Amino acid sequence: VTGSLPLALTMGEPAGIGGEIALAAWLRRRPDGPRFVLIDDPARLDSLIHRLGLSVPLRIVASPAEANACFAEALPVLPHPVPVAVAPGQPDPANAGAVAGAIERAVRLAEQGAVAGIVTNPIHKAVMQRGGFAFPGHTEFLAALTGTPAGTEVMMLACPALRVVPVTIHVALRAAISQLTTEAIVTAGRVAARGLQRDFGLAAPRLAVAGLNPHAGEEGAMGHEDQEIVAPAVAQLRAEGIDAFGPLPSDTLFHAAARATYDLALCMYHDQALIPLKTLGFDQGVNITLGLPVVRTSPDHGTAFALAGRFQADPGSLIAALETAAAMARRRAAFDRSFSDV
Amino acid sequence: VTGSLPLALTMGEPAGIGGEIALAAWLRRRPDGPRFVLIDDPARLDSLIHRLGLSVPLRIVASPAEANACFAEALPVLPHPVPVAVAPGQPDPANAGAVAGAIERAVRLAEQGAVAGIVTNPIHKAVMQRGGFAFPGHTEFLAALTGTPAGTEVMMLACPALRVVPVTIHVALRAAISQLTTEAIVTAGRVAARGLQRDFGLAAPRLAVAGLNPHAGEEGAMGHEDQEIVAPAVAQLRAEGIDAFGPLPSDTLFHAAARATYDLALCMYHDQALIPLKTLGFDQGVNITLGLPVVRTSPDHGTAFALAGRFQADPGSLIAALETAAAMARRRAAFDRSFSDV
Repeated sequence: VTGSLPLALTMGEPAGIGGEIALAAWLRRRPDGPRFVLIDDPARLDSLIHRLGLSVPLRIVASPAEANACFAEALPVLPHPVPVAVAPGQPDPANAGAVAGAIERAVRLAEQGAVAGIVTNPIHKAVMQRGGFAFPGHTEFLAALTGTPAGTEVMMLACPALRVVPVTIHVALRAAISQLTTEAIVTAGRVAARGLQRDFGLAAPRLAVAGLNPHAGEEGAMGHEDQEIVAPAVAQLRAEGIDAFGPLPSDTLFHAAARATYDLALCMYHDQALIPLKTLGFDQGVNITLGLPVVRTSPDHGTAFALAGRFQADPGSLIAALETAAAMARRRAAFDRSFSDV
Repeated sequence: VTGSLPLALTMGEPAGIGGEIALAAWLRRRPDGPRFVLIDDPARLDSLIHRLGLSVPLRIVASPAEANACFAEALPVLPHPVPVAVAPGQPDPANAGAVAGAIERAVRLAEQGAVAGIVTNPIHKAVMQRGGFAFPGHTEFLAALTGTPAGTEVMMLACPALRVVPVTIHVALRAAISQLTTEAIVTAGRVAARGLQRDFGLAAPRLAVAGLNPHAGEEGAMGHEDQEIVAPAVAQLRAEGIDAFGPLPSDTLFHAAARATYDLALCMYHDQALIPLKTLGFDQGVNITLGLPVVRTSPDHGTAFALAGRFQADPGSLIAALETAAAMARRRAAFDRSFSDV
């Protein structure tokens, strides 16, 4: 591991739990675990360390390259000041520009090959938007920063027991049904399959495609979308050489024996994907953006204002996000080398 | 247990796995486990026992009262012949009347107080309807047989980790959203709460009510149904003295810590209820009809024609259904006694 690049970890919303779970992740570092450089405000980290009574030495670095050498003894920080000092749980929209700036710095470092990938601490959508942030969330912002064509960035959620991709996400259930198209399912499946090959070491990923309706519509008895929208997407993915199959009844798709038959479940709506994911892997979930030119993961939770400043938030999901990003970066490098070797 | 009434177990579709899982359940009987009388065709059971090479002595009985004495040594059968001998996996609609008749006999025995409750083996909807059966499934037939007002019978599914009631069931997801009403949620919650009190020994059952939309709509940002339809139902149930709360985001409702906060999750659509249930308790699920004058459970699977005649079907769900029915009957008797004592 020595010699490999560190990850960039963004500060996220400074009034949320991002800072303290970053400190906790460093305190739980393992000699062979992922190393990271935190893009954050040293003054606010000092204040947080003092408030929580922690023993975390900070090391101000000028570039990620310095991070590896010190990581065992101190938490490396690339200084990125916020204009307003905020108390835990009391966000100020005036910090939105600095919060977004930390994300942009991380992306640029990844594009330059200075970090192996980026891990983002949670931001708060409403606070950011009141502060002038013009994107629905991280994923769309990252797509814009990297010039990724709209709709080809794909959110995957993973825990040790399961990987899921929801084709539709943060919209009302009624709208998710109306918006569901064969094209959206095919794009998500295609990007997901490529991501699993390049970043997860799966040569021929198996994609189980969930039906929209109960029992996947039972041949039209309970809705026609599975025959008219989902099935043609499965056929198209198979025609492209991707091992997709379905539509399958979603209620019987997530027990252990069913999970053994696929590498990823492609789901039609938010809760179809997130109910099984959070039932099986609460506090271990990792949010992964596939389809970007840079490796990016994040913990699968929000800013948790109610918990902030108490050092009670579980850093498990952030630690899993760091480990997942490091593993993805290693596999992507190996995959790209194997192709450039030809 | 000696002296208590046996349960009635119906034959279900004779070409399905019902017969062999009934035989398996008897073979796995425990001295203090539930006793049952099978309402089935002795000739077809003999043929099945021979085909599978099992050692299951049958005892033809004239009434359930005879079943207790023999249950340890032989499987008691109330003879109920089918007109057409069918091979496993090859159903004949001509048997539909006999299949429905076995269900009706079980109900009448329960109404007469001759059995403690009824457990139904799976029937096949399409085969039954081709044979003239005029009901969508067991639940509606049982409601009609017992004069239960339409819509006040409630399907609950239970496994050791979770109980769920889906307010809408076997309809397209789009239709489930359109059909969802405050009244339907209130009725389901009211019947479920009463059932948990009377049949499950819970004096003040806690009902977690799932939101329809992602994040329960996030205050209208993702759909208005949670504010306009679900929240008023929660308020109405609370006004009736029922400990209901929500609407809650359904993705975070089913991990262990969340499950510890309620006795039942009231869900808005089929897969919102059945994904977590089957993820957590596949092969252990029990289907329970609340709101009927008789105790009724069934295994949470179908006729499994592809498995029939091979003795490979897991009898776990049927055994759980028998145990659940026996426990419900005991608690209901105790509950009713405690009220009649006043």
